[in-house]
Amino acid sequence: MSRFAAAVHLVTTDGPAGRRGVTVSSACSVSDDPATLLVCLNTSSPDNIRFEANGNFALNLLGTEDEAIARVFAGEGSLPSDVRFARGKWRSGETGAPLLATALASFDCRLIEARIVATHRIMIGEVVAVRVGARAPSLVYLDRAYRSL
Amino acid sequence: MSRFAAAVHLVTTDGPAGRRGVTVSSACSVSDDPATLLVCLNTSSPDNIRFEANGNFALNLLGTEDEAIARVFAGEGSLPSDVRFARGKWRSGETGAPLLATALASFDCRLIEARIVATHRIMIGEVVAVRVGARAPSLVYLDRAYRSL
Repeated sequence: MSRFAAAVHLVTTDGPAGRRGVTVSSACSVSDDPATLLVCLNTSSPDNIRFEANGNFALNLLGTEDEAIARVFAGEGSLPSDVRFARGKWRSGETGAPLLATALASFDCRLIEARIVATHRIMIGEVVAVRVGARAPSLVYLDRAYRSL
Repeated sequence: MSRFAAAVHLVTTDGPAGRRGVTVSSACSVSDDPATLLVCLNTSSPDNIRFEANGNFALNLLGTEDEAIARVFAGEGSLPSDVRFARGKWRSGETGAPLLATALASFDCRLIEARIVATHRIMIGEVVAVRVGARAPSLVYLDRAYRSL
């Protein structure tokens, strides 16, 4: 699967169940009208249930400048959640999900369905707002390495 | 959604319902063990039901050399299916789905679930075989243009 070139996103949530952020490369658009997209998250981390419990998520498309944030939210250094979030500048989306100020684009989504397939939870979201950031090279993951496109 | 950098795949099927191929960029891996992946296909084309009817699909990851094939299977020139398939060299996967000889990788999948979300059908497949091809630049779609990575 390492041959899958994929954009790197930071998927975030906030709400009654607490804040959470995870770096992912398994995400794709589903439909344009209504705008829906999906993201796959490992079920092995118990904290990932917060996405479903909060009922929202934001998919923050990362530029190459945010590779360090991508690494931190991928678990490098095993930092506590507060320390991870302190590495970025955030504002709250309409759904309550944290939007990364430096993201190339942030898709603020209402979770409409979550479904477990094998080890992962597929979360499908309806996009309620999009924040488009700077036009800059996209961070891409291919052959187990971060690249620029 | 045009800011989503995504690898370009040619998804194919063959079986009792007939052969079919479509260029897609909405695909992602789901889980490693068992290896599963998903692909999103527009429901507006009635021929796309063949994937579900055949119960198999192959996801052929395209290299930059196959941009012309990507365009043809994306509908450019509105060529009949036989003419489209004549542009590539194929062999049959274990599931019966056509594997493109020049693909960087082909994931031969048994369809385990299909689910309609808005205008698209999300097809989830269990990978039964992988054929790894040449190590060459991957064809990527970003900002409505084909790129190389």
